[in-house]
Amino acid sequence: MREKVKEIRSSQVNIADAFWSRMQEKVIDVVIPFQEKVLNDEIPGVEKSHAIENFRIAAGLKTGEFYGMVFQDSDVAKWLEGAAFSLAVRPDAALEARADEIIEIIGKAQQPDGYLDTYFIIKEPEHRWQNLHECHELYCAGHMMEAAVAYYDVTGKDQLLHVVERLADAIIDRFGPEEGKEHGFPGHQEVEIGLMKLYHTTGKEKYKDMARYFLEERGKDPDYFYQEKVKRGWQHWGQYSLDQLDVSYNQAHATIYDQKEAVGHAVRALYMYTAMADLARTDGDERLYQACRTLWENIVNRKLYITGGIGGNPEGEAFSNEYELPNDMAYAETCVSIAMVFFAHRMLEMETDGAYADIMEKELYNSTVSGMQLDGKRYFYVNPLECEPGASGKLFGYKHALPVRPGWYACACCPPNLVRMITSLGKYCWDESGSTIYSHLMIGQTAKLEKAEITIETRYPWEGEAVYTVKPVTGQEFTLAIHVPYYVDLGQEETCLTVNGERINAQEILQKGYVYIRRKWADGDQVAIRFPMEVRRVYANQRVREDAGCVALMRGPVVYCFEGVDNGELIQSLRIPREAAVTPYVCEEGILKGNTLLKIEGCRMVGSEALYSEKPPVREEAVLTAIPYYAWANRGETQMRVWMLE
Amino acid sequence: MREKVKEIRSSQVNIADAFWSRMQEKVIDVVIPFQEKVLNDEIPGVEKSHAIENFRIAAGLKTGEFYGMVFQDSDVAKWLEGAAFSLAVRPDAALEARADEIIEIIGKAQQPDGYLDTYFIIKEPEHRWQNLHECHELYCAGHMMEAAVAYYDVTGKDQLLHVVERLADAIIDRFGPEEGKEHGFPGHQEVEIGLMKLYHTTGKEKYKDMARYFLEERGKDPDYFYQEKVKRGWQHWGQYSLDQLDVSYNQAHATIYDQKEAVGHAVRALYMYTAMADLARTDGDERLYQACRTLWENIVNRKLYITGGIGGNPEGEAFSNEYELPNDMAYAETCVSIAMVFFAHRMLEMETDGAYADIMEKELYNSTVSGMQLDGKRYFYVNPLECEPGASGKLFGYKHALPVRPGWYACACCPPNLVRMITSLGKYCWDESGSTIYSHLMIGQTAKLEKAEITIETRYPWEGEAVYTVKPVTGQEFTLAIHVPYYVDLGQEETCLTVNGERINAQEILQKGYVYIRRKWADGDQVAIRFPMEVRRVYANQRVREDAGCVALMRGPVVYCFEGVDNGELIQSLRIPREAAVTPYVCEEGILKGNTLLKIEGCRMVGSEALYSEKPPVREEAVLTAIPYYAWANRGETQMRVWMLE
Repeated sequence: MREKVKEIRSSQVNIADAFWSRMQEKVIDVVIPFQEKVLNDEIPGVEKSHAIENFRIAAGLKTGEFYGMVFQDSDVAKWLEGAAFSLAVRPDAALEARADEIIEIIGKAQQPDGYLDTYFIIKEPEHRWQNLHECHELYCAGHMMEAAVAYYDVTGKDQLLHVVERLADAIIDRFGPEEGKEHGFPGHQEVEIGLMKLYHTTGKEKYKDMARYFLEERGKDPDYFYQEKVKRGWQHWGQYSLDQLDVSYNQAHATIYDQKEAVGHAVRALYMYTAMADLARTDGDERLYQACRTLWENIVNRKLYITGGIGGNPEGEAFSNEYELPNDMAYAETCVSIAMVFFAHRMLEMETDGAYADIMEKELYNSTVSGMQLDGKRYFYVNPLECEPGASGKLFGYKHALPVRPGWYACACCPPNLVRMITSLGKYCWDESGSTIYSHLMIGQTAKLEKAEITIETRYPWEGEAVYTVKPVTGQEFTLAIHVPYYVDLGQEETCLTVNGERINAQEILQKGYVYIRRKWADGDQVAIRFPMEVRRVYANQRVREDAGCVALMRGPVVYCFEGVDNGELIQSLRIPREAAVTPYVCEEGILKGNTLLKIEGCRMVGSEALYSEKPPVREEAVLTAIPYYAWANRGETQMRVWMLE
Repeated sequence: MREKVKEIRSSQVNIADAFWSRMQEKVIDVVIPFQEKVLNDEIPGVEKSHAIENFRIAAGLKTGEFYGMVFQDSDVAKWLEGAAFSLAVRPDAALEARADEIIEIIGKAQQPDGYLDTYFIIKEPEHRWQNLHECHELYCAGHMMEAAVAYYDVTGKDQLLHVVERLADAIIDRFGPEEGKEHGFPGHQEVEIGLMKLYHTTGKEKYKDMARYFLEERGKDPDYFYQEKVKRGWQHWGQYSLDQLDVSYNQAHATIYDQKEAVGHAVRALYMYTAMADLARTDGDERLYQACRTLWENIVNRKLYITGGIGGNPEGEAFSNEYELPNDMAYAETCVSIAMVFFAHRMLEMETDGAYADIMEKELYNSTVSGMQLDGKRYFYVNPLECEPGASGKLFGYKHALPVRPGWYACACCPPNLVRMITSLGKYCWDESGSTIYSHLMIGQTAKLEKAEITIETRYPWEGEAVYTVKPVTGQEFTLAIHVPYYVDLGQEETCLTVNGERINAQEILQKGYVYIRRKWADGDQVAIRFPMEVRRVYANQRVREDAGCVALMRGPVVYCFEGVDNGELIQSLRIPREAAVTPYVCEEGILKGNTLLKIEGCRMVGSEALYSEKPPVREEAVLTAIPYYAWANRGETQMRVWMLE
């Protein structure tokens, strides 16, 4: 395991990147204000949120009834976290003042004993903490902890941090391994992440211990949720009988050490794995690290869509069987890809292996940002790899996989998750440990690190070039370790790594996907990496029956797809022969302007008009266009495929 | 339209056929006795039927409560119909006596006004005829009419016929276009078929008129079912609001003349089309014939699986969009393929076009009999074209598509439907009109027709040869018209048609798939047809995205499939190159003994062990085995595919 890394705060990084700056603008200009209006019930046509009003009522500032999901509070927490990160990207005194006001209300809603959940405060105070399985109190608490930590990090204001500390203390008072305390764990993991972040910020061991308790208590008794139900006696939440109850949905079927396959609701799973990895690296816990590795490898080697999508089973928004990765029926929720970035990031903090950074890249450039329309106004929760208008979003099996992004949902998980990922992107770019700065992502930016201020100039992912300009803080020698994506062949003539214009042998200093450049850095020293961005033909394992006979195209980390709008009807009849010439070009106009598209000299199979015929289809040459997957469905309802027959 | 044909009674035909005699034995030896025991609640482990007991209670012979589905009565009717046909195949005095007893009970259950439905007689006499939408009274009546007609045809006994006549008269008293009568139509079509059969048997126009009324009333007011609900006032049946109600499920969205696309629940649809065709041919009704043609062509050209399976949408056991024919998610209910035989048969009676007989063959040799395990003991309701153990029958999207045939269901529609089709097969083989005998199917048998007794000797569908031996009844000249399947090329040297060994020019006497041989027949005259049975590579229309890049193999009417048990794991990695040598051979042992299997010199794509890889898969030669589709899943749970990548 790596020596302890120093995490980067998002406010240390200032993104200036062709790909990401536009994304940050959209979430700050469009998504955050939109969600704020939703929370305040100011958007006609969007289902009433009432989330802030719930806090006002709980605080006694208003009278009225609770309204919304049992986890409605988490919407406020998620907004606050995103708003906090956005203040680091672009300070906004008015926004900060409004956030402070909301925090004030939250503080007033908190009960004298530290309890904080408006559903139970308003509606069922006598039923607190009695249905961990379904009632999301710990889930909401976890999100509030994340928000508090982010808000403190960015603004230095600790009011919300004190609120969540009191809340965490209330949780610690009630739950734990000690006799006299209740033994239990949440039905939806999240508090574990929050407690770990609270530990990192406050340094108080009790929060880390509580995270470990919730993680390790999980699955010890697979009947726990059923027993909880029997114990509480009340029935209006929780319709399950033990027969119907599949606790693998909640990853509660076995202890975290005995879970060898990633199963169940994928967001719950990834939040848990993320917390496990954070705890493992924090405690240097080898056993826990191995548990994380097992689950990581299961996902990456058997359960991951090429786009980074996770969750092949729409039922339960869940992992499916190994290698069961249906394209048109995919669930691949945006939130899960985002959570995979979190998990990869924590794994990377334990082990400097480019494979983790490669997965972060895969997620970041594909199945996370595909969740947002290019204008920031509409969102995919489900990210299929094949779309058939008329079937997708309509027919049995495909109802969840919409052909165009819908607007805001009552259960608004994905857009705020995108907000926090995109506004806190800097956190994933770097870390520092000992005498080394690690660069995980080639994203244009200026980063104020402990040892140096580093500026990256790049057109990645469209071009294979990045220039790092270093301004050291001290005169001490240190190492700059730069992640080289897995597809870059450092042995190739066209690939080169230079320091101040002088080529160095990259292969000699390459270790597990990172080149390590150690020197006494002078102000303005430049490291440049250049590599050809070739279009790569990728094949799926033969076990993936949905991808049999197919190829997908990638260039850099970007997965491409084919849309009907560019390629005419029946894109299933198109073929990408092995010898097909593929030419990348920059799109010069329209909504895809600035993206690198692909022109493919492929063909189209033309067959009989009959439903079935003995006449074999014949090839016709056809020039095809592929666009980055993340940008699909931005030009109306049209067919789409990632995997194309060869 | 053809001149009026004379229908054949099943008792005129004595099947002696390599393929079908075994099927008849299985349904007579296994299915009929099994169902009889089920009806009498004598099979432990099968959900209680209570169906005969319901009749006893309704008849006042027993006391007790109704038990079962609202349409439980139809199980008794279906069994009686199958038992009747089986008595023609193999007389059985004991079985007949038991059937007579049941008929006796049914007669006693009938109410003084002719009403007959045990659910309403026992449970809700005040609610009779008030929920045509969901309560299946007319559906049960229709099946009882079919049973009565069959029983009368085979045994000459008319007790049940009188019962259903009184029932039909009660229906006519209540429903109809006249003022003072109720206007309505059933939610599940079937009574229309029964009434038409009752008309054919009794010659009473009123039954035909009633069938026409129900058909033509349908869809005149698409809100009818909703209004019926409002009118009846009671709610314990019928949860639908008008918003939720999609009456295209019941083919009630438009009149039968305005329905241009086959939609909704496929059994309901096909029963309706069958009755429409019967009425059209009976009345020589050109407009109704055109309505039938439109729906026929829509199915055959856009909604039919290559196996004859119908119903691409498991939701509502329904037709899907045009060309939307998912293989692993197919519904393709056995009952629907059987109903397609009925529909094709009725169309054929209107128009001597081999295309109808070809579809009958497609259904008979594939997606109907695939519903029954080779031992007759287990049954598929759903007949997918691809099976993936671990997913099929288990995962979202595939739960309905089981990998092995289950036993008896509480809703036992398919097995009794198979019984009646297989035991009455003779009906579909022939018809006579004017001075012509039409042979539609090459099935080994002796048929006692009006103009002649004809024996067919054949090994069809395994061999392309059939010998017709004619024993004329009169000395008059007549024509023997023999259906030549669509895939037979009469211009080919190896194909020949002989009369008493002398080759005749078949092409000259071919018209729409039939060769017309007119002569003064002498006792023992023999017509022989011989044609090569080549394996044919079949391609689906490019619009069928699930079959893109794939080929299916057929030989004669038989569709082949590939199972894992013969071909190793990952059958999606197998390829059938266009030039692959394919050799048919007769299976000599095991459960498939007697079937013609195929040996294919194909290949297997072997790729990287990684989930995704840039290493293209490489071909390895592989000898593959294909088996007839109908016989799949007889050797345990294993992968299966009909459509294979080329």
